[in-house]
Amino acid sequence: MSYARQMLDSYPLTFKVDASVVAATIDALKDCAQACTADVADDLSERDLTELVKCIRLCLDCADVCAATAAVTTRQTEYDGNVTRPLLEVCAATCKSCSDECERHAQMHEHCRVCAEACRRCERACRELMAAMKEA
Amino acid sequence: MSYARQMLDSYPLTFKVDASVVAATIDALKDCAQACTADVADDLSERDLTELVKCIRLCLDCADVCAATAAVTTRQTEYDGNVTRPLLEVCAATCKSCSDECERHAQMHEHCRVCAEACRRCERACRELMAAMKEA
Amino acid sequence: MSYARQMLDSYPLTFKVDASVVAATIDALKDCAQACTADVADDLSERDLTELVKCIRLCLDCADVCAATAAVTTRQTEYDGNVTRPLLEVCAATCKSCSDECERHAQMHEHCRVCAEACRRCERACRELMAAMKEA
Amino acid sequence: MSYARQMLDSYPLTFKVDASVVAATIDALKDCAQACTADVADDLSERDLTELVKCIRLCLDCADVCAATAAVTTRQTEYDGNVTRPLLEVCAATCKSCSDECERHAQMHEHCRVCAEACRRCERACRELMAAMKEA
Repeated sequence: MSYARQMLDSYPLTFKVDASVVAATIDALKDCAQACTADVADDLSERDLTELVKCIRLCLDCADVCAATAAVTTRQTEYDGNVTRPLLEVCAATCKSCSDECERHAQMHEHCRVCAEACRRCERACRELMAAMKEA
Repeated sequence: MSYARQMLDSYPLTFKVDASVVAATIDALKDCAQACTADVADDLSERDLTELVKCIRLCLDCADVCAATAAVTTRQTEYDGNVTRPLLEVCAATCKSCSDECERHAQMHEHCRVCAEACRRCERACRELMAAMKEA
Repeated sequence: MSYARQMLDSYPLTFKVDASVVAATIDALKDCAQACTADVADDLSERDLTELVKCIRLCLDCADVCAATAAVTTRQTEYDGNVTRPLLEVCAATCKSCSDECERHAQMHEHCRVCAEACRRCERACRELMAAMKEA
Repeated sequence: MSYARQMLDSYPLTFKVDASVVAATIDALKDCAQACTADVADDLSERDLTELVKCIRLCLDCADVCAATAAVTTRQTEYDGNVTRPLLEVCAATCKSCSDECERHAQMHEHCRVCAEACRRCERACRELMAAMKEA
C-alpha cells in the first residue's frame, strides 16, 4: 500500500471523495513527475539531443505542474474547490502535451516510451479524480 | 533590474509578449511564493494558531502553485500554449483565495497583511500577462 | 517495478553504482516527501495542533530537502560528486530529525507513526546509497 | 524592501541572527534559483546546445537545491540546527560548481554570464549566513 494511501487512511477528516481514487491520483502524479525528471536527464545524454529539446521543455513543465498538483491534492480540504479542480484540469492538459511529444520519440528511446506511459496514466488519473469530485 | 528581467533580455528567442510584462509576472510569482512560505512559518509561531489553519493550508497551496507557474512562465515557448495560459488562470484564482483569507487576519498579524498584498499583486500580474498573451 | 527503476534501466549512460540501489533511494525519497507533505495536512486537522508545531516545521523542511535530493539523485552524473554525496548526508540528517519528532506523536496519531517510518526508511536508503558510492 | 525582509520583520519569534543577513540570503537563493531555471531554458534554445549539457545539468541541480535551502532558511527555528547549517554548506558548494561551469560559457552567452554572477552572489550569501550563525 503506497504512503499516499496509508496517510489518507489516517487522515482526521472525512473525505467526500473515495480515498482510493485520491490516493491513486497522488501516486500517478508522483510517478509522472519522477518519470519526467528522469526523462530530461536521459534526453540530455542522447546523441540526437537537438531533436529532443521540445521533449525536455515539456517534461520540465510537466514535472513542475505534477509536483504542485500532488501537493495541493494531498492537502485537499473543503476550502480549495477553486484550486484543486482547475489545477487537475491544467495538469491533465500538461500531461497530454508531454505524452504526445514523448510518444514521438518512443521507438527511438525506451525512456521516452516509459515517460509517455507515465504521463498518459497521470492524465487519466487526474480525469478520474475530477469525475469523482463532480459526483461527490 | 531583477534576474528574471536580465535573463529574459539575453534570451536567444524573440518573445511575442513584451519582456517587461513577462519579467514582472515572474518576479510577482516568486515574491508571492516567498511571502506564502514565510507566512506559514509565522502563523505556526502565533498564539491564535487554531484560527490560522485555513490560512496555512491556502498559503501552502499558493506557494506550490506560484512556484510551478513561475518555472513554466520562465520556460515559455511556442509549445506550451495549452499549459501557460490555463496555469496562469489557476494561479490567479489561488492567489485570490489566499489573499482573501490572509486579509481576514491582516489587522491582527502584520505578516498576514504583507502576504495578502503579495498575493493580490501576483493575481494582478498573472491577469496582466494573460491579457498581453491574448493581444500577442 | 517503480518508474524510478524503469527510467534508470533505459538510461543511456553506464552507472558506477548499482541501479537497484539508486532506484530504491529515489523511491524512498519520493515516499518520504509524500508522507511528510501529508503529515503536515493531517497535523493541521488535529485538536492538539499546538503540540504538533515542531512536527509540522520539520515535516515541511524534510519534504523540501527530500524532493531536491530525489531530483539531484535522478540527474546524477560524473559532474556532481561535490553535490550528491553531501546532499544525501544532509537529507539523512533531516530525515532523522523528522522521524524522531514524528515518533513522539506516533502513539497518539497513526499518520505520525506512518510518517516516522517513511523518514527512517529514507534515512537508511540515503546511507546505503552513500556507502555504495564510496565503494564505486 | 524585499518580501523576505518584510516577512522577517513581522516574525513573531526573536532571531538569534541579524534579520538583514537572513533576508539577504533568502533573496540571493531565490534569485539564483530563478537565474538557473532561466539559464536552462536559454541554453535549450542555443545552437551550441551539445556544449551546454553539463551547464544545464548543474543549473537544474542548483535551482532545486537553492529552492529547498530558501524554504528551510525561511522556516528557520531553534529546532533545525542539524539541517540549516549543513544545507547552506551543500548549497554553497552547488552554487560554486554551477558558477564555475556557467563562467566557461559567459563570453559566448550573456545569459550564462548573468547566471554565473547570481550563483557566485548566492554562494557568498550562504557563507555569510553560516558565519553569522556561528557567532550567534
